Amino acid sequence: MTDLYSIPTLDDIKKAQKIIEPFAHITPVLKSRKVNERGGCEIFLKCENFQKVGAFKFRGACNAIFTLPEEEAVKGVATHSSGNHAQAVALSAKLRGVPAYVVMPENAPKVKVKAVKDYGAEVTFCASTLEARESTLKEVVNRTGATFIHPYNDNRIVCGQGTAALEFMDQVEDLDIIMTPVGGGGLLSGTALSVKHTQPDIRVIGAEPSLADDAFRSFKEGKLMPVYNTDTIADGLRTSLGDLPFRIIKKYADDIVTVSEESIIEAMRFIWERMKIIIEPSCAVPVAAVFEKKLDVQGKKIGIIITGGNVDLDDLPWMK
Amino acid sequence: MTDLYSIPTLDDIKKAQKIIEPFAHITPVLKSRKVNERGGCEIFLKCENFQKVGAFKFRGACNAIFTLPEEEAVKGVATHSSGNHAQAVALSAKLRGVPAYVVMPENAPKVKVKAVKDYGAEVTFCASTLEARESTLKEVVNRTGATFIHPYNDNRIVCGQGTAALEFMDQVEDLDIIMTPVGGGGLLSGTALSVKHTQPDIRVIGAEPSLADDAFRSFKEGKLMPVYNTDTIADGLRTSLGDLPFRIIKKYADDIVTVSEESIIEAMRFIWERMKIIIEPSCAVPVAAVFEKKLDVQGKKIGIIITGGNVDLDDLPWMK
Repeated sequence: MTDLYSIPTLDDIKKAQKIIEPFAHITPVLKSRKVNERGGCEIFLKCENFQKVGAFKFRGACNAIFTLPEEEAVKGVATHSSGNHAQAVALSAKLRGVPAYVVMPENAPKVKVKAVKDYGAEVTFCASTLEARESTLKEVVNRTGATFIHPYNDNRIVCGQGTAALEFMDQVEDLDIIMTPVGGGGLLSGTALSVKHTQPDIRVIGAEPSLADDAFRSFKEGKLMPVYNTDTIADGLRTSLGDLPFRIIKKYADDIVTVSEESIIEAMRFIWERMKIIIEPSCAVPVAAVFEKKLDVQGKKIGIIITGGNVDLDDLPWMK
Repeated sequence: MTDLYSIPTLDDIKKAQKIIEPFAHITPVLKSRKVNERGGCEIFLKCENFQKVGAFKFRGACNAIFTLPEEEAVKGVATHSSGNHAQAVALSAKLRGVPAYVVMPENAPKVKVKAVKDYGAEVTFCASTLEARESTLKEVVNRTGATFIHPYNDNRIVCGQGTAALEFMDQVEDLDIIMTPVGGGGLLSGTALSVKHTQPDIRVIGAEPSLADDAFRSFKEGKLMPVYNTDTIADGLRTSLGDLPFRIIKKYADDIVTVSEESIIEAMRFIWERMKIIIEPSCAVPVAAVFEKKLDVQGKKIGIIITGGNVDLDDLPWMK
């Protein structure tokens, strides 16, 4: 890969798979009769909530940090993140034996802050605006000489996230559709590349909250649009779509659909109650899209990448 | 088996395994590095929260209902239960194609009542005392001619519950200890029989809330003692130990330990947060016993039967 913003090849993603293989779990694929009945189709959940740090984000961070040249790695890595990427960077740095510096917004879920600290990272808090995050991160990088690991606008991250779909297609044959949520776009772009370079007949569809529909609008307009509102319950998806992921999604993804907040909460609770697994609001977004028939799923085999299971148990959506 | 109150043999349990095999899931065994670190031992969770109806109770009810002679079965089955046994009877009856009549206390968790109704059972509510349950059940049985399926004081139930341990020992070699919670004693007695008749070196240990410690006191005194207090958060364990389970436990179990309410809630939350699986308060009881070092676990291989995952998501213990 020539630079961090070029579109990766299938070979790049397969290299990432080799790099993270000693560290990442091969996560299970679960299904449930009740969930199938609710959706009117056969639904396969690729359970990245059982991944290290409880989220797919470990794949990208692990790949990015383990491909750093030694002279950069020793100075450490830094990032800003409201949650899962922060944990992923912290654990990957710990595994490589280098320092991690994480800038987190003051309103980040407590359980995520604790986890980052438990992995040994140094946490610096800032206001919950993108500007505050970026300026605080700059200070941290200037002070430490650490390498910034962007949560999605980086092809090493995209390659890492793309490994989940490669694994998924090995585990389940003949999927008709693979769905992921879209926030910054790292997972959807990595998934689209992995799928279209190996099984191009599988449709790749992103799902986004209507309240943070910048990827939907960008995809429909063919140009990158900013996110206007970040009030969605799906805290992992409040971020804006990145430039590199957008270029990939525009070319390789088949569609993006949107869902309401109510349907996200209902889908999340349905999965908790019927499957007894803990999924974040973000991963309920594609589930909600299937339940709400936002795409033609009737009788099809639908794969959904369940992105994570890190929720604040003192602040569940249905408690409000 | 000569009557419903005789102690079953290993052969009886193996017959139950054959009977329920077409209907019950072979549930997965999960483990977690973080849980092992917390416990100072290797912990294997036999995930009956992923069983049909979300609980091990399906095993016993399914065995009892499918061994009924046809002329009894057609009149239906009846039971009183605060939850999982009710769902288990309702689904097993539905699978056999016979009616189910369930008496439930008014304060049963909403999610459990809804599930019983969804399986097609007729629900009759009563006050939440054992007397009210029994008198209401008698009325239902008189009216319908249905056969009463007791939740634990019945060797067909004990045999069904004992199949979980047989499966567990097939899935994990060289366990040092197998633990279950104790309420009515169906699971602990079935487990003790399965273990001691096949791998007698494995210690079988029950765990009980201190607030409902009738099994602990009965085991220590060598005679059946009533439960005095049923305020425990572990709603599945509020019931009194049954006579048949007690006779088996006295002979085949190695020990019973007790834990505080605080430690049950903490262990439950720890498993939710670290393993991303939903477990009921009842199954956090043996986990709490391990975490609190209520028995010698250091460096050992501990198997815990996770009994179920049916919780009311509007009423979680840490919300109080």
